[in-house]
Amino acid sequence: MNYTNNYNPTISDAELFESIKKEREYIGYYNLVHQDTSIFKEYAKTVKQKDIVVIGIGGSTLGTYAIYKFLKHSKTLDKKLHFLESTDPIELKSKIDAIDMKNALFIVISKSGTTVETISIWKYINSLIKCDKSNTVVITENDSKLNAYAQTHQMQTFEIPKDVGGRFSVFSAVGLLPLAVVGLNIDVLIGGAKEIYEGFFSENSSYERILKKARFFAEYKNSFNINVVFSYSSRLEGFNKWYIQLWGESLGKIDINTTKQGLTPVGIIGPIDQHSFLQLIVEGKRDKTVTVVKVDNFENDMKIPDVKLEGLEELAYLEKLDFSYLINEQADATIQAINELEDIPCDVITLETVDEKNIAALMYEYELLTSVVAKFLHINAYDQPGVEAGKIILKNKLKIK
Amino acid sequence: MNYTNNYNPTISDAELFESIKKEREYIGYYNLVHQDTSIFKEYAKTVKQKDIVVIGIGGSTLGTYAIYKFLKHSKTLDKKLHFLESTDPIELKSKIDAIDMKNALFIVISKSGTTVETISIWKYINSLIKCDKSNTVVITENDSKLNAYAQTHQMQTFEIPKDVGGRFSVFSAVGLLPLAVVGLNIDVLIGGAKEIYEGFFSENSSYERILKKARFFAEYKNSFNINVVFSYSSRLEGFNKWYIQLWGESLGKIDINTTKQGLTPVGIIGPIDQHSFLQLIVEGKRDKTVTVVKVDNFENDMKIPDVKLEGLEELAYLEKLDFSYLINEQADATIQAINELEDIPCDVITLETVDEKNIAALMYEYELLTSVVAKFLHINAYDQPGVEAGKIILKNKLKIK
Repeated sequence: MNYTNNYNPTISDAELFESIKKEREYIGYYNLVHQDTSIFKEYAKTVKQKDIVVIGIGGSTLGTYAIYKFLKHSKTLDKKLHFLESTDPIELKSKIDAIDMKNALFIVISKSGTTVETISIWKYINSLIKCDKSNTVVITENDSKLNAYAQTHQMQTFEIPKDVGGRFSVFSAVGLLPLAVVGLNIDVLIGGAKEIYEGFFSENSSYERILKKARFFAEYKNSFNINVVFSYSSRLEGFNKWYIQLWGESLGKIDINTTKQGLTPVGIIGPIDQHSFLQLIVEGKRDKTVTVVKVDNFENDMKIPDVKLEGLEELAYLEKLDFSYLINEQADATIQAINELEDIPCDVITLETVDEKNIAALMYEYELLTSVVAKFLHINAYDQPGVEAGKIILKNKLKIK
Repeated sequence: MNYTNNYNPTISDAELFESIKKEREYIGYYNLVHQDTSIFKEYAKTVKQKDIVVIGIGGSTLGTYAIYKFLKHSKTLDKKLHFLESTDPIELKSKIDAIDMKNALFIVISKSGTTVETISIWKYINSLIKCDKSNTVVITENDSKLNAYAQTHQMQTFEIPKDVGGRFSVFSAVGLLPLAVVGLNIDVLIGGAKEIYEGFFSENSSYERILKKARFFAEYKNSFNINVVFSYSSRLEGFNKWYIQLWGESLGKIDINTTKQGLTPVGIIGPIDQHSFLQLIVEGKRDKTVTVVKVDNFENDMKIPDVKLEGLEELAYLEKLDFSYLINEQADATIQAINELEDIPCDVITLETVDEKNIAALMYEYELLTSVVAKFLHINAYDQPGVEAGKIILKNKLKIK
């Protein structure tokens, strides 16, 4: 018997793991866990300004925002991070109004150096206050035109390595510099990412956890084309947004068989979205997987007080409960309700507490998961050819004017 | 020839229109466009407080937030709206810290009167400051236990009619009272909704617009199970959230053939999400419809200044452009890029400007569209049985403690 075929290649777990290990040679984000963070910490020590303004969009801001939003109310920070990313004039104006311009450090972030939104906003800032080496730092690729401009003006610059994509850049200068400047512990951040890295790549690898989940997403892509992240803390709102970019832009691709692939990310916040999206999960079409993210210990003892409201005694069982207990019971009730249905794929990620280590671990886990799912789908996670058409149309429209 | 069948009922456009017209007899939201708003305006005149605090969750806050977020920077308002909805203790604390408690009016909103999150947060507020008729107003069904409590304490109350569902309640007291109190023109709001109502129900009805769109969503529900709203203004972020609840909770249902239906809403913001989700739309699986919402005239002349950055002359074409022109060119470039692909269903809604009339028209259009899609899908848009299981599990968990 003789046999030939041109079927879609399939890939075993072991082959996939070897292939991901090889990616470390040319995909830069994997190795960010090994970097020396001292340049960021040294620079941070020199910053006197209190308003730290990140000018950037997409991958240049979403990861930093995710970490800052998660941690800012649990730490005592004496500086504030602002993000200027939208060209919506009303939004931009209201954000700028909240900044003390004379006491601000501007961190201009653009991987290519010529991002339309970023340069437009920076020009606007330049018309309000002189941006020079005393109040401006630039993060970009080291051969970009923006880098040349910064060098000419003796501005401090930090590099985004060529092999680190924007949406995978949170653990490069893109995230570490602003986060160090506002006083977060970036070594603990890197430590959290490294723990996941080592769990995955070490000799006694625990890679099965990620591979199993990724293979499920890939094999059932046509049944479950929507992946819901249901985060039980408002602090994870930034993480949800970052996840949506990472997942959507990495996995919405044409595969090696020229088939359009794409798993659609949805990010929701419990308990608020329990009052909206949960109905769709429970009674709607079975086209969604659900990942619940919860925080085990909020380190917060804010309680529902022992206040009596006559006529509302049926809710007396709430009295003296910690709010953090309530929110976690809500998460568990949702998980139980989903599991009892038995036909909705659901997994649960529990963060121990609200700290740098846990948020970094969560984000690095998702970066790895994205790489592995892409490999199973036979697509390139790291490019974004689909957005280029719109950019070219825009440039032509604006130049013609 | 003889013929019988038990096929899924199908419904013609004319039958559907008649059926929606009949719904006006028992579904309350349709008729909110005819109401007398004077009780809200009269009450608003009496309010001296500057911090207006809405305590509620889901349908009790999302619509109000959508309108407030859209308008707040374009109007000169001397009062500020706050929304307390999450039981996340860290979020809750930071929101409460921003309120001047002695100069605050609390608007407690719960349709049933016994919403766990709302009552928990209100109890907490009660432990910080005495809530009485001088600083508290209640919006609820008129036979709820919360209403009885308010009456006993001589608090002003406003009614949520029984036949108006939470997610369809924005044009009832739920939205109109807080919006009138902060100084928005609720008559112009109702006027915007009424314009859509009359366009749909009048003798020379223009109902085809909504019916055509709804029928497409229903007929292609298995091909396009995801409906993306791509809003080209950060001001529409609240609208996106409101849309997600309205669409998800109304359309995620079991139909008369016991089949689980559900169209998944996704809300994104351009140009920010052009740098993330657009890749998935353009190269990803063809499982999404896209509705672009744009604002024709931002009434804002903020410009990209004529600032020269040596080496970055390739972006000189941006100089002197209005930011609002840039954002609309970005929207048009996205629409053109999508349309050139020819296999992504896409429609465009253009709001004339940032005012009460336009946001109300947009929201009423979506309420109508939701009702019509539900009718085509043979489901009940107005109930939410799927969230009850989780609520019962939660109550049992908390009572057992």
